[in-house]
Amino acid sequence: MSKQFDVVVIGAGPGGYIAAIRAAQLGMNVACIDEWQNAQGGAAPGGTCTNVGCIPSKALLQSSEHFEHAKLHFGDHGISVKDVKMDAAQMIARKDAIVKQNNDGILYLFKKNKVTFFHGRGAFGKAVEGGYEITVSGKTAETLVAKQVVVATGSNARPLPGVEFDEQQILSNDGALAINAVPKKLGVIGSGVIGLEMGSVWRRLGADVTVLEGMPTFLAAVDEQVAKEAKKALDKQGLKIELGVKIGEIKKAKKGVTVAYTNAKGEDVSLAVDKLIVSIGRVPNTTGLNAEAVGLQLDERGAIAVNDLCQTNLPGVWAVGDVVRGPMLAHKAEEEAVAVAERIAGQHGHVNFNTIPWVIYTSPEIAWVGRTEQQLKADGVKYKAGSFPFMANGRARALGDTTGFVKFLADAATDEILGVHMVGPMVSELISEAVVAMEFKASAEDIARICHAHPSLSESTKEAALAVDKRTLNF
Amino acid sequence: MSKQFDVVVIGAGPGGYIAAIRAAQLGMNVACIDEWQNAQGGAAPGGTCTNVGCIPSKALLQSSEHFEHAKLHFGDHGISVKDVKMDAAQMIARKDAIVKQNNDGILYLFKKNKVTFFHGRGAFGKAVEGGYEITVSGKTAETLVAKQVVVATGSNARPLPGVEFDEQQILSNDGALAINAVPKKLGVIGSGVIGLEMGSVWRRLGADVTVLEGMPTFLAAVDEQVAKEAKKALDKQGLKIELGVKIGEIKKAKKGVTVAYTNAKGEDVSLAVDKLIVSIGRVPNTTGLNAEAVGLQLDERGAIAVNDLCQTNLPGVWAVGDVVRGPMLAHKAEEEAVAVAERIAGQHGHVNFNTIPWVIYTSPEIAWVGRTEQQLKADGVKYKAGSFPFMANGRARALGDTTGFVKFLADAATDEILGVHMVGPMVSELISEAVVAMEFKASAEDIARICHAHPSLSESTKEAALAVDKRTLNF
Repeated sequence: MSKQFDVVVIGAGPGGYIAAIRAAQLGMNVACIDEWQNAQGGAAPGGTCTNVGCIPSKALLQSSEHFEHAKLHFGDHGISVKDVKMDAAQMIARKDAIVKQNNDGILYLFKKNKVTFFHGRGAFGKAVEGGYEITVSGKTAETLVAKQVVVATGSNARPLPGVEFDEQQILSNDGALAINAVPKKLGVIGSGVIGLEMGSVWRRLGADVTVLEGMPTFLAAVDEQVAKEAKKALDKQGLKIELGVKIGEIKKAKKGVTVAYTNAKGEDVSLAVDKLIVSIGRVPNTTGLNAEAVGLQLDERGAIAVNDLCQTNLPGVWAVGDVVRGPMLAHKAEEEAVAVAERIAGQHGHVNFNTIPWVIYTSPEIAWVGRTEQQLKADGVKYKAGSFPFMANGRARALGDTTGFVKFLADAATDEILGVHMVGPMVSELISEAVVAMEFKASAEDIARICHAHPSLSESTKEAALAVDKRTLNF
Repeated sequence: MSKQFDVVVIGAGPGGYIAAIRAAQLGMNVACIDEWQNAQGGAAPGGTCTNVGCIPSKALLQSSEHFEHAKLHFGDHGISVKDVKMDAAQMIARKDAIVKQNNDGILYLFKKNKVTFFHGRGAFGKAVEGGYEITVSGKTAETLVAKQVVVATGSNARPLPGVEFDEQQILSNDGALAINAVPKKLGVIGSGVIGLEMGSVWRRLGADVTVLEGMPTFLAAVDEQVAKEAKKALDKQGLKIELGVKIGEIKKAKKGVTVAYTNAKGEDVSLAVDKLIVSIGRVPNTTGLNAEAVGLQLDERGAIAVNDLCQTNLPGVWAVGDVVRGPMLAHKAEEEAVAVAERIAGQHGHVNFNTIPWVIYTSPEIAWVGRTEQQLKADGVKYKAGSFPFMANGRARALGDTTGFVKFLADAATDEILGVHMVGPMVSELISEAVVAMEFKASAEDIARICHAHPSLSESTKEAALAVDKRTLNF
């Protein structure tokens, strides 16, 4: 007989596992299905984020940052070291161990919250009286019946047309996180978050990295001033970024890959690399979901069509995270997940799409919330801008990392904060203050008048808020 | 003839230089007097904070942290290094260069804001028609006349009775920041911020460090749970902390110092060290101010007596920072400084003493704002507590630093946040979010419902807020 659940969640990435846990906390009988396997064939919940995304990339960024710091900056501190070497295989092993900790953590959370976990692929069977039949296929086959279904099947790397990922020479994020010896020459197509983060890791470890970007502007979604500062810093580090290129033929040889492209000047170039990372975006993943069996509607991009409340066209079927519209960010998926679980329980979950922070974990880090200056201009909003450089921040000087700045954009009439844009040390952590401020509809002056610990990088946030009124104290 | 100013500020520490700049921004004709000299005899504005406090300590903490990390943790990342050595003199030289950057930065700010700087000691001369005569003594003698005076003369390290600081063997913060070879054995009397930070620096560099504390509890002002966690971590690192001791005779020999003390068990102990840091608190500095010439009133601790608005007993004389009541924190001084300058200009400056953050820059860092659990108990306030360990935070795992936790205390009835207490990686930066939340009288649920970037340490803040309602998602 089939197993009955109040809620079945398909996918255990940040959207799925959080939806399952929150629904269980609210008293529902919940199952969560996920097919991700670790190298031993065991369950590896956490999705792209945990297995081949946010978490492992941060592990490699951290390791490679220590390596580069030891090579380039220890001397400033009076520290001498000899024979600095990176064992890339050990770096990858550490990353794998961290991923496993996170996988196991989620399995523990399922137990703790009494979520029944099924290791296998979840798919729609058919609509039944009062719900849906969901099949689990994998080592063991199961049929579940769910009153409510939450689809959280995430996304996959988008391949270049006609160029398959083999994860040995042509890599998606998956293979990019598993390279276990530093390539001499690395190519990256696409200068988005993944391309820049992975390019940074391998450049730090000694690879000659070229990033090819089709757009004529660098990080077009980022505030222009921030993107410019980041580009300057990345250039200085030796990351070769070519903008406005047209990718031509990509040829695999026995030991490498050749990329033919036309550069911004219209010249034909051939780039030979040992490995090529293709990071040109991600596509919603509905493979094997059998959406058509129940008539679940997709949009023109292949995403599951949902309204603002994450409701699909089918009663009792919800979808969250990368598989629906909106930014493909783990924390956006989590917010949707909590809101959906609460809506199922009859509560009024809410997601504020205007205050979702963005982070790129390069060095310098880039983080922002709200609208960019170019967006405000396009929207015809009158605004005031103020910024403060980390160069003038005491703690940044003590850290030895004074790249970048914090920038506030506030409404010209009301002084309400419309966007906060940061590039510099630890801004991935500084951005949370700005998010809270925007949630409370704070004015720039509010932040300018709030006491910030000295010495801290966060004083730059206060000073940037002061700069909106042209009264910085330390610059 | 004497020079006339609207405002004369005595002292160019964080209280003084900020008061001068803000007053100048508000259109006043301002002078600032400071006697601090660098090794070359030049002006070194910035006070204790810049010269022998916040900034140089963070520089040494950073350098020593890199050193320890290279020795103990590089292996985890796959990084091998040989012959890791610290040139303490170079570390100190880097620190000195950072201090000089900050000194010069303040001189630049004075110029930019048209504050007239006098390098010398400022003192009261006499009350005159419509103000006060202020004398400057140093390389050149000057007499100024000020309509309004802001005293920001800071504080000095408190010596043990009968034991003078020689800054060679018996050190205050001043000497502790200038040791240029790692001592074999280092004694620290007082386990406050300075004692722990300096003890940490030299322990990391290889010194055998013993911290002697008179109080029976560790960091009594800190939330008990946080203090306990910090003690556990510091113990593990090998910092020897003895609580509940009674300090006896302190004898200087040719090459070291012997400290006789009675330990908590009542046993007599003799501790021989190469150098001894005495960090048992600080006393307000009014030396040479000639307060009596104008009848400026001090309180029983020797601080300048002020009301909530930083007004002294004399019309037109204000005092801010360490030389008045309240916590001896640079950012508290700055807030008072801004408020005083604005009051002088007829505005309504305000300082919220309930939302001043505290930070101790040990590893793990300690940071808090608002009341501790023991204070709430003493005040008879009904509260809910929630905490979240960094062990369960993905970014902390990726960083390789999972010590500590974030803890929220919220009103049992209203859920308003009453205190946020943190111990762990980068909490010096995470605390700013909590301060903003408290300024907006946020409830714990507000923070629990605000999107936080993934993966970030700040997710622990959100989860601790969720924990108040017993619904953490990741623990």
